[in-house]
Amino acid sequence: MKNLHNLLMLALFTPALYANTPVQPLPLSPQLAYQLVESLTTEVGPRIAGSPGDRASVQWATSQMKSLGFDKVWTEEFVTPYWQRGQARLEVLTPFPQSLVLTALGGSVGTPANGIDATVVQFDSLEALLAAKPEQVKDKIVFINKAMTKDRAGSQYGKVVGARAKGAVDAARLGAKALIIRSVGTSANRFAHTGKMSYDPAVPKIPAVAISAPDAQQLARILQKAPEAKLKLQMDNQQTEDAISHNVIGEITGSERPDEIVLIGAHLDSWDQGTGALDDGAGVGLVMATAALLKKEGQPKRTIRVVLYGNEEGGLVGARAYAARHAKELSKHVLASESDFGAGRIWRFETRFGASALPFAKQIQQQLAPLGIEAGGNDAFGGPDVSVLKALGVPVVTLEQDGTDYFDYHHTPNDTLDKVDPAALEQNLQAWLIMTRAVANSALDLRK
Amino acid sequence: MKNLHNLLMLALFTPALYANTPVQPLPLSPQLAYQLVESLTTEVGPRIAGSPGDRASVQWATSQMKSLGFDKVWTEEFVTPYWQRGQARLEVLTPFPQSLVLTALGGSVGTPANGIDATVVQFDSLEALLAAKPEQVKDKIVFINKAMTKDRAGSQYGKVVGARAKGAVDAARLGAKALIIRSVGTSANRFAHTGKMSYDPAVPKIPAVAISAPDAQQLARILQKAPEAKLKLQMDNQQTEDAISHNVIGEITGSERPDEIVLIGAHLDSWDQGTGALDDGAGVGLVMATAALLKKEGQPKRTIRVVLYGNEEGGLVGARAYAARHAKELSKHVLASESDFGAGRIWRFETRFGASALPFAKQIQQQLAPLGIEAGGNDAFGGPDVSVLKALGVPVVTLEQDGTDYFDYHHTPNDTLDKVDPAALEQNLQAWLIMTRAVANSALDLRK
Repeated sequence: MKNLHNLLMLALFTPALYANTPVQPLPLSPQLAYQLVESLTTEVGPRIAGSPGDRASVQWATSQMKSLGFDKVWTEEFVTPYWQRGQARLEVLTPFPQSLVLTALGGSVGTPANGIDATVVQFDSLEALLAAKPEQVKDKIVFINKAMTKDRAGSQYGKVVGARAKGAVDAARLGAKALIIRSVGTSANRFAHTGKMSYDPAVPKIPAVAISAPDAQQLARILQKAPEAKLKLQMDNQQTEDAISHNVIGEITGSERPDEIVLIGAHLDSWDQGTGALDDGAGVGLVMATAALLKKEGQPKRTIRVVLYGNEEGGLVGARAYAARHAKELSKHVLASESDFGAGRIWRFETRFGASALPFAKQIQQQLAPLGIEAGGNDAFGGPDVSVLKALGVPVVTLEQDGTDYFDYHHTPNDTLDKVDPAALEQNLQAWLIMTRAVANSALDLRK
Repeated sequence: MKNLHNLLMLALFTPALYANTPVQPLPLSPQLAYQLVESLTTEVGPRIAGSPGDRASVQWATSQMKSLGFDKVWTEEFVTPYWQRGQARLEVLTPFPQSLVLTALGGSVGTPANGIDATVVQFDSLEALLAAKPEQVKDKIVFINKAMTKDRAGSQYGKVVGARAKGAVDAARLGAKALIIRSVGTSANRFAHTGKMSYDPAVPKIPAVAISAPDAQQLARILQKAPEAKLKLQMDNQQTEDAISHNVIGEITGSERPDEIVLIGAHLDSWDQGTGALDDGAGVGLVMATAALLKKEGQPKRTIRVVLYGNEEGGLVGARAYAARHAKELSKHVLASESDFGAGRIWRFETRFGASALPFAKQIQQQLAPLGIEAGGNDAFGGPDVSVLKALGVPVVTLEQDGTDYFDYHHTPNDTLDKVDPAALEQNLQAWLIMTRAVANSALDLRK
């Protein structure tokens, strides 16, 4: 029945069925990136992998690329887990009855229908939980209360996100009934930040949620006044393993070396709470606009391939599918780069090139300098989806954005279009045009 | 059955039953106001009139006043409507399916169980709706999309709040099925601001909701692209008319003229979405701390009466009950003043005194000047609850707070303790001490 269901879903929702949906043609102007973000977030909105919004976004991207004059446009299907958020409720039962603002972490199981009632054991970090004894944790709700600080590079994210990604496994291993984390985020607003968590097949699956920063502070105060405070968590998420999603790919064909691919990417999926304007509508708009505007200048020498990855949020599912499907072609990927860090101004240019290509990197940076972009090192990340290609030897660059405020909005309902500054996005677009133009019209092998 | 139910509720929840609940004694320090806000918002949290939180807050206030050494503490019961928020959901059905962030307006009826499906007619103000013809509005959802700007005095609130207060009546009169307003608030965060709305017995009651500012912008974009967009609203609020609530009153008895009352007030109830830290936990903490710290200095000559009003948010219900119950005593109210505009620094001192008391007002302002407080006029508002007494001839003052950010948080889930700046609250407390001390130790008749 499940397979039949999926076939039916596929028949109903395969993008081809939508191929003739009219798209409002957008002018090829410096505002194009913003107009694409506006269109995607307004007409599609939330688009978690496997959902109707995901399918609508694939249709949207395909139609827009055609409308923008891309030479080739196609989709590449992959199978993906599809996680659906249900109702969620977290209450202090005693001694200070009140509700806390929470969100299920992506991938979390639900609770039994009548919920989980338990006392709480609080830790100030994942490391403190790992050092705990089972008798401290058994049958309790684990609360990891670690705050995150801001900086331009978002460097604290990696130090905090472990509690979200694997806290449920570590808590369950010690006998906990559920996991609550303080949101991985930097805002004092009362939004809970979702994000992917994972289970270990050898450890019982317990429900995992995040509460907002003000709620984490509130819960800490409650526990200080009443260490035996009792909480109730009720949640009913669902997950299927074999949904269908797609990477959407569009090309501007190279005039001289069409087999050499300059890949510029972003991810098309978003979390379900917001409309994914910063994460990653901005990136989608930027790379689509870059390719379309460069075609308007005249066909580049190399092929510019825009890859809009599916299901980045669920763990680079589309990126792995792309790498697998294009394995034989990767040596022809002369460069890959991704925009996926919001919509702040680009302030640094980083590469991961072979040594003999570094003077070329310097040339690009000199063209970027008037935009306020400084030179970075040769250890670029490239972007989350593109990191899969980097690991396979593809040269990458990062046009590094100012991420000071990114984690205020990241994975919350508050990730909406109004958080995108059109002027900052235009600066991004100018940088992407310079970088992509330079590489697409060069003959240089960046691996060497 | 309803009356039996209420008697039972009264028996179960009358404050006397809680009178021996232990309270953690707070030190009489300059941090007392903040510590009281912290205690109220943590231990009670949301406290809409008629709710269990309301009853807990009455118990909390009574116990705290006793613990702080007030000479007399009592409660005054009144009957009040009790409005309970249910589930609410607002979806764009076609052509861009997505959910919008909404909140029911306080007092709104729900929808039929299967919701209301309709197209939308948008107006840029209540005035524009009032100028509309029935054929524009009939069977549609009215959307009033008016933004609010910020200033220190919060002067735009009065110009925008009409859509919330009476928009549902005006829309229903023209045949609308429901009302959506852009939140009355100044934040770009995705919170919907609730607040009281009213019906007219002669006009059908239609459901009324607010959407957040980003959602209002989103809906406007959707309607621009698709004027025939269809929405679905589902909501199930409940209201009973005869719940019980209380004003809580505590006094520091005057040593020389105990029958002369200096009333300093705030409101104890809050909306249900946040913990009511700014609205009006801060005010509650300030006036309680003022009285307690002044008693520590030695008994004042006049009686200082702290009135913590019940159900301000539902329309000054406690304030009217107080005025009715104390009608014969109002001539002995030498002054009334309320703190209910958040927790920003006080920047201006305003009075509503008789002409011969104005030199005394000037003396008070001179004492306040080192705190950065300038002189205002003699047309003070006094505060929402206290305005009822002002209308009956009681002299009032306003220690006017900086409200620049107040409407970012007002009536949202985001009204939480972390939004209270302890240093600003301490400046408030110093000003309240100066003003209250001066009036309580004076023999002047401020009416003359």
